[in-house]
Amino acid sequence: MHTEKPLILVVNDDGITAPGIKALLAVVKSFGDAVIVAPDKPQSGMGHAITINSTLHVTQTNVDGNLAYACSGTPVDCVKIAINKLLPRKPDLIVSGINHGSNSSINVIYSGTMSAAVEGSLEGVPSIGFSLLDHSIDANFTSASIYAKKIIKSVLEHNSNKNLCLNVNFPNLKEELINGIKVCRQAKGNWQEDYDERTDPFGRTYYWLTGKFVVEEDGSDTDEWALDNGYISVVPVQSDVTNYKIIDTLNYLENV
Amino acid sequence: MHTEKPLILVVNDDGITAPGIKALLAVVKSFGDAVIVAPDKPQSGMGHAITINSTLHVTQTNVDGNLAYACSGTPVDCVKIAINKLLPRKPDLIVSGINHGSNSSINVIYSGTMSAAVEGSLEGVPSIGFSLLDHSIDANFTSASIYAKKIIKSVLEHNSNKNLCLNVNFPNLKEELINGIKVCRQAKGNWQEDYDERTDPFGRTYYWLTGKFVVEEDGSDTDEWALDNGYISVVPVQSDVTNYKIIDTLNYLENV
Repeated sequence: MHTEKPLILVVNDDGITAPGIKALLAVVKSFGDAVIVAPDKPQSGMGHAITINSTLHVTQTNVDGNLAYACSGTPVDCVKIAINKLLPRKPDLIVSGINHGSNSSINVIYSGTMSAAVEGSLEGVPSIGFSLLDHSIDANFTSASIYAKKIIKSVLEHNSNKNLCLNVNFPNLKEELINGIKVCRQAKGNWQEDYDERTDPFGRTYYWLTGKFVVEEDGSDTDEWALDNGYISVVPVQSDVTNYKIIDTLNYLENV
Repeated sequence: MHTEKPLILVVNDDGITAPGIKALLAVVKSFGDAVIVAPDKPQSGMGHAITINSTLHVTQTNVDGNLAYACSGTPVDCVKIAINKLLPRKPDLIVSGINHGSNSSINVIYSGTMSAAVEGSLEGVPSIGFSLLDHSIDANFTSASIYAKKIIKSVLEHNSNKNLCLNVNFPNLKEELINGIKVCRQAKGNWQEDYDERTDPFGRTYYWLTGKFVVEEDGSDTDEWALDNGYISVVPVQSDVTNYKIIDTLNYLENV
């Protein structure tokens, strides 16, 4: 027997102690029973990584008095073990974030936050990843939380697609400066890497990955345009990565 | 000044000592100058993970007498640092693998082998990931190598798309039993996880992720059908994960 209230899984990639997950927990508590299953340490940039050659450890704890589990694995591991081991039943919704930093454009594929949401949708649970365009630990989640609540309410009311996956990014603006919400596509963009090369105390070279994100188009139907123009971007995400547009150009490979 | 021979970057996710990367190196050496940049340890299931909160270490070495670098990072890190630091110029082709095990269907998004190829295509280098449907360390790469050579030759001759990314899977069959090559789409499929729960010597619970892969459709235009029917599957892969089909159904979100 379970309550009729929605069961909502809350995950992230910044780790269970991040302010962003506390903000998201506060939002979803008004909609149902929330359970946090989140990495026990920061897991940014983990993409769709899973733990297949080592063990997973899970510690029950609480976040702001709410049931929570700290997991030694990646964000995707958190979703898998939550659904398959930790939760009393399949959740009605998975929310991931609120990430400290953007996951717009191509960042979706590097993002642990969004990979957790993609994994949720693969498991047949509507999933939403939320990210705020502010990397700092003391980011202000006030207006993001107001809009996250509106979006979650609307999805719970309207959505019947169990494989729904949304990538929601919030501009770093006060509520009154946000122009609204745009449903859009992922902008074409890329990172121009710059490796910072250093020498350790023992004479060995090592590197830090740094870089600059470059948007490579200016279409007004993209997430980058929306965010630049004061809108919250919502991009539906799929797990079929087939490039259908070029399939027919590859016939030459069938005759080698 | 550089030679007119193609420069080919060879990466993988099973690590620089894996038999599969040696097999792929042997194949590409006949087409140009090969350089290996591969993880210094197995990195299977790392998806599109990158190293952003710790340092990267690179050690120059050789594999079967060929220039090689062992990198402390993920497969995607290997591609980024190869292009931005280690190679004398942008490579003409990136090959990833030959992976020990399938990367067909949804496995493409968990796969370090394929994420390295996706990253290469994002950097503007045509990239091909190769995988053999045999997980074992003593897998026989003979027929995979014969067909990998044909595919690489054909791509070098015909392809002008610098963002090409191909996911090639080989059935575990002798050459004479392979029916040919099918250009196809990613089959719908998913993992049914089963966590093996154990207790460590100190009384604490830990988990091993296990599971069974389930193909969820039987279309004859998919990679799973091709592999089941003795064909090599070739799926073109894209990095735009926007779910265009459902964008128009989400208008309700713009009016919250």
